[in-house]
Amino acid sequence: MIKVGILGGGQLGRMLCQAAANYPVEVHIMENDPYCPASHLCDHFVLGDINNEEDVYRFGKGLDALTIEIESVNTEALEKLEIEGIKTYPHASALKIIKNKILQKQFYKEQEIPSSIFTVIDNLQDLQSKADFIPAIQKMATGGYDGRGVRVIQTKDDLNKGFDAPSVLEKKITIYKEIAQLIAINEKGETALFPAVDMIFDPLLHILDYQISPADLPKEVLWKIEAIALKVVKGLKSPGIFAVELFVDSKHEVFVNETAPRVHNSGHHTIEGNFSSQFDMLWRIILGYPLGNTELIFPAAMVNLLGAEGHQGEASYDGLHEVLKMDNAFVHIYGKKETRPGRKMGHVTLLCKEKTDLAHSAHKIRQILKVNSK
Amino acid sequence: MIKVGILGGGQLGRMLCQAAANYPVEVHIMENDPYCPASHLCDHFVLGDINNEEDVYRFGKGLDALTIEIESVNTEALEKLEIEGIKTYPHASALKIIKNKILQKQFYKEQEIPSSIFTVIDNLQDLQSKADFIPAIQKMATGGYDGRGVRVIQTKDDLNKGFDAPSVLEKKITIYKEIAQLIAINEKGETALFPAVDMIFDPLLHILDYQISPADLPKEVLWKIEAIALKVVKGLKSPGIFAVELFVDSKHEVFVNETAPRVHNSGHHTIEGNFSSQFDMLWRIILGYPLGNTELIFPAAMVNLLGAEGHQGEASYDGLHEVLKMDNAFVHIYGKKETRPGRKMGHVTLLCKEKTDLAHSAHKIRQILKVNSK
Repeated sequence: MIKVGILGGGQLGRMLCQAAANYPVEVHIMENDPYCPASHLCDHFVLGDINNEEDVYRFGKGLDALTIEIESVNTEALEKLEIEGIKTYPHASALKIIKNKILQKQFYKEQEIPSSIFTVIDNLQDLQSKADFIPAIQKMATGGYDGRGVRVIQTKDDLNKGFDAPSVLEKKITIYKEIAQLIAINEKGETALFPAVDMIFDPLLHILDYQISPADLPKEVLWKIEAIALKVVKGLKSPGIFAVELFVDSKHEVFVNETAPRVHNSGHHTIEGNFSSQFDMLWRIILGYPLGNTELIFPAAMVNLLGAEGHQGEASYDGLHEVLKMDNAFVHIYGKKETRPGRKMGHVTLLCKEKTDLAHSAHKIRQILKVNSK
Repeated sequence: MIKVGILGGGQLGRMLCQAAANYPVEVHIMENDPYCPASHLCDHFVLGDINNEEDVYRFGKGLDALTIEIESVNTEALEKLEIEGIKTYPHASALKIIKNKILQKQFYKEQEIPSSIFTVIDNLQDLQSKADFIPAIQKMATGGYDGRGVRVIQTKDDLNKGFDAPSVLEKKITIYKEIAQLIAINEKGETALFPAVDMIFDPLLHILDYQISPADLPKEVLWKIEAIALKVVKGLKSPGIFAVELFVDSKHEVFVNETAPRVHNSGHHTIEGNFSSQFDMLWRIILGYPLGNTELIFPAAMVNLLGAEGHQGEASYDGLHEVLKMDNAFVHIYGKKETRPGRKMGHVTLLCKEKTDLAHSAHKIRQILKVNSK
């Protein structure tokens, strides 16, 4: 049986393990927490630091292939392993571009991929000289994740409150819609595009409220999104699953926001909503199988279950019974021992033939189901 | 987190583990093979004999609940554990009736549940005196599974080739259709019925060829099936999942063939074909959640992948790529190290809006995909 390692054992690793059990594959996971969501769902769990070169190298040495569930992994070890013949999804070269926001923006520019205008910032002093660039978004070159390392620079005063670190400063785009485009690409360069997804954010907290599949956009805009996302993925020259997040402005111009070279939160609905899920698809790529069918089974909405504000400790899923009574709800609890404010503790997918009902149901889930501490 | 033990770690245990990862539950598995399909997908794997009283008792002692994936488990240990407050799905009392074919048939008779006429046989000599009962089916009281322990007694000569063991001799019914009716029943006695399934058998080998969901029968016959299956489950007085297998004759009379008090081969299609799968449903029952929605997402066919005749050893899934290219096929390989003739090595579920296409696709799978040895 092919031996595949996953760097990281969070919820993405957990769902990868659930999907892996449909195929003949031996799954190894490395994570620094023996109680992480995926630790008990793999063939071999290895305690280790995915950012440590020695740990990653030792983990990957005896395996046939490696994949990731988070970008912050040691790429030097991946490069060494690639030379020794271990296959990687994605390749270290693609990961290095994505991991560094400066390199990622430069990549879009070089590839002539539409993305917001940006300038590179070395430190806070540098930022303070960019008054002509605001309103803008400052993104730290490295270390950002799930909204961390990102700051909105709206006013001149905000320039003084920015990060004192290498970063990109992006001209703010007036966003009409945020879209996620999931793409699979295999070793032969064959691609499969999932239907694009509408990401609906909370206007105040700027956290993902819910998402709807498929996105509600004119065909011509969807084609543009697909073409741009394909250009990103082909430019990265690596097999794997890629989630390209894009902005659409009021003129229906499309801009790439950022790309994740892995299974992604924006693809969770594919487990029930599409014939092949993003997790199934990644296994098909790694195992050398034909790409899966990305077609919709039903339109779907996906709601993240985040740890409630003011609650820390053993998780209590208040309202869970009510959600489980809903005819079209699929609940995924990640089994994390502790909740923290904003922590991703689970998600709920809703399937509905009538797309118009999805937003209403998604709001209902957000109102009913709270992840509190006991 | 609630601690739940599964007795048995085969493919049913494997699929139970895949479904368990959607909920906060700690899964323990006992099986006598450390490389069984489910051993690496649970929180705690315990090596032990599920038929040994001491092993089962020790395994269940620290848990909140126990379930099974095969009938041949030690019921004495389950009874002791029940007295000590460990919940069981199904109860030992139901399992004892089901495990013994004589008790099972007597149960149907007592409950006035239609089932073929039968007589109890003590040994071969006893069988030989039943010439007036043929054509008949002899079923050993205990030890039968997946067609083992069952013999067709067509002629007087066959009477001499029967089992020399306690068994039931059932009058042969002229079968028009074989149907499986899956039912969930929770602690409160609430029930949920999955749409009945058509089981299509190979006329020569009498192994399941494929099955189709939903069954193609007039509404009135389906109602009869549901009512009879409900009577079986209510009579057994136990929460859990039950698969009631029934015969329909040419006059549309319905007879219970046998009942399995657990997740069942005839419910595999529910993973993709129904909103709540049989595996999801069992977790809902054990965790005290509301029952799931048994409604169809799409009509489905399910094909078992059996080890090919003449092949024993490390498994090779010949034709797998071709099946994975099919737009509507969901492949489940159970990860068994070795194939043997007739061994259940996996299954493929097909979803199709047009039910008429399903039989054709199921035949195609059977032709393309062969489990050979390497």
